[in-house]
Amino acid sequence: MKLRRSERMVVISNYLLNNPYKLTSLSTFASQYEAAKSSISEDIAIIKKAFQEAGIGEIETITGANGGVLFRPTIARSEARALVEDLRERLSESDRILPGGYIYLSDLLSTPKILQNVGRIMADAFKGQAIDAVMTVATKGVPLANAVANILNVPFVIVRRDLKITEGSTVSVNYASGSSGRIEKMFLSKRSLKPNSRVLIVDDFLKGGGTISGMISLLDEFDCQLVGVAVFAENIQQRQDRKDYKSLLKVSDIDIKDHKITVKIGNIFD
Amino acid sequence: MKLRRSERMVVISNYLLNNPYKLTSLSTFASQYEAAKSSISEDIAIIKKAFQEAGIGEIETITGANGGVLFRPTIARSEARALVEDLRERLSESDRILPGGYIYLSDLLSTPKILQNVGRIMADAFKGQAIDAVMTVATKGVPLANAVANILNVPFVIVRRDLKITEGSTVSVNYASGSSGRIEKMFLSKRSLKPNSRVLIVDDFLKGGGTISGMISLLDEFDCQLVGVAVFAENIQQRQDRKDYKSLLKVSDIDIKDHKITVKIGNIFD
Repeated sequence: MKLRRSERMVVISNYLLNNPYKLTSLSTFASQYEAAKSSISEDIAIIKKAFQEAGIGEIETITGANGGVLFRPTIARSEARALVEDLRERLSESDRILPGGYIYLSDLLSTPKILQNVGRIMADAFKGQAIDAVMTVATKGVPLANAVANILNVPFVIVRRDLKITEGSTVSVNYASGSSGRIEKMFLSKRSLKPNSRVLIVDDFLKGGGTISGMISLLDEFDCQLVGVAVFAENIQQRQDRKDYKSLLKVSDIDIKDHKITVKIGNIFD
Repeated sequence: MKLRRSERMVVISNYLLNNPYKLTSLSTFASQYEAAKSSISEDIAIIKKAFQEAGIGEIETITGANGGVLFRPTIARSEARALVEDLRERLSESDRILPGGYIYLSDLLSTPKILQNVGRIMADAFKGQAIDAVMTVATKGVPLANAVANILNVPFVIVRRDLKITEGSTVSVNYASGSSGRIEKMFLSKRSLKPNSRVLIVDDFLKGGGTISGMISLLDEFDCQLVGVAVFAENIQQRQDRKDYKSLLKVSDIDIKDHKITVKIGNIFD
C-alpha cells in the first residue's frame, strides 16, 4: 500500500496505538507502505513528538539488527487526576447506596470510555515494571482487568468462585470472604497462567481484602510473582490489612440514614 | 496546545480512534489545537483518506450548525476473513478438547489483540443499525461484549446466573439450560438497561440456544428491542433452533476418541 507521507503517518500512528509494547522494525513499515526506511524514521520522529506533547505515550526507538520502535501508552498526570476526580463525583451520587450499605457501580464498570481511562491510569501506575499477565476475579473485575491488559498488551486471567466444566483442570485455594464471613473457595484453570509469570492483580472494590489474599495465594500455587494490586475503589472502614494496594478511589463513609457517600481520591497518585 | 500540522493530524487521528460514533465539531479541534477551522478541515480530509485506504474506518463530515465529524470503525473483508481463518485454526487444536466434549477457549477470549479484532468483526456485521447497548451473560461473554461495546462506544450489560447483592434490584427470567438439562434462572440489574434500548446480544459459545433465548426474554421484560445476536463459536450439532444468529466459527464435530475438532468459518460473512 503506497500512501502519501501525511496519510502514512496517520496509518502508522493507528498501528502503534493498537499494538502497545510490541517491537516493530522499521523495515516492516517500509515494506508495508513502500517507503524508504529513512522516510519511515522521519515519520516516527514526528509521531513520537506528537504522542509526547499530547500525553498519549512514549515511543522508544531501539537501534541495531533486532531494533525497531515500541509504543508505551502513558497518561498525563493532570488528565488522570481530572478523570479520577470526575469518577469521585460519580461514585458520591447518593442513589448508589444499596440496602446493606453496598454501592452500585456496575454502570461505571460497563462504560467503555471510563474503562479505557481507568485502564490507562492503572497501567501507568506500574509503568516500567515487567508484567506478563493481569489477574482478576469474576465478574465485575473482568472489564477492568481487560482494560488494563489492553494497555499492557498482555493476556488476563479470570479467577472464578464457582467451578466450570469449560475451564478444564483447575487449582483451588481457600479464602476468607469478608461479605459472607465464611471460608470460600476460588478456582483458576491450570492452563490459564504460565509458571514464573509476573502478575498484576486488578479488582473493582476492595473491602476486607480476603479476595485479593486468595488471588495472591493462587499466584504461589502457580509459581508466579505478584507485581502489585490495583483496585477501582476501596472501603477504608472495612480494610483489615494495611497492604500497599493502589486505589483510584477511597470510600470513607457510607451514611445509609442520610443517603450520603463520602468518597476521596485514592492513593494511586501518591 | 499548538502543534505542527503533521503532529496535529496524529493527535486528531488518536482522538477519533478513541471516540468512535461521537460527533465532534471542527471548532472543538480548532480551539484545542489553536488552528483555523479550514486547516482542521484539511487535516480531517487527509485522515479520512488514510483511514479509508487502510481499512480502519469511515469518517463522516456533517455540515451545519450542529455538524462535525464522526468516526465509524470498519474492517476490510479480507482482513476480517484472515483473522477468522486464524481463529479457526486455533480452535481446531486437538488439545482444546475437555472431558465431556467441551472445548477450552478461555485463552482466546482473554487475549486483548484477539478480542479487539473479534469486536471489530462483530460490530461490522451490524453496521448501519442503531445499537444502544450490548448484552451478554457472565462470565466468558463479558470480554467479548466489552470488545464490541468499545467499537460501538455504547455501554454493555451483564446478565448473571447468580444473584448478587451489589446489583441492587433485579429482574429475573427462567431459561432452559442445555448443559444441565434443567430450567435455570438468570438475573439483570434493573438499573443497568434503559427501556426502549436497541440491544445487540453477544456470547462466547452457542450450544442449545437456551441462554440466548433467556436474554431475549429479558429484553422483553425491559421493554427493549433485539438488534441481533453474535457469537464467537456455535456447535451446529447441538443447535436446537434455526434462528439467524451470526457466528464467527462453527464447530461441526468433536471427535473425543481421535482428539479431533472440526471447525468451519461461521455465517458472519454470509
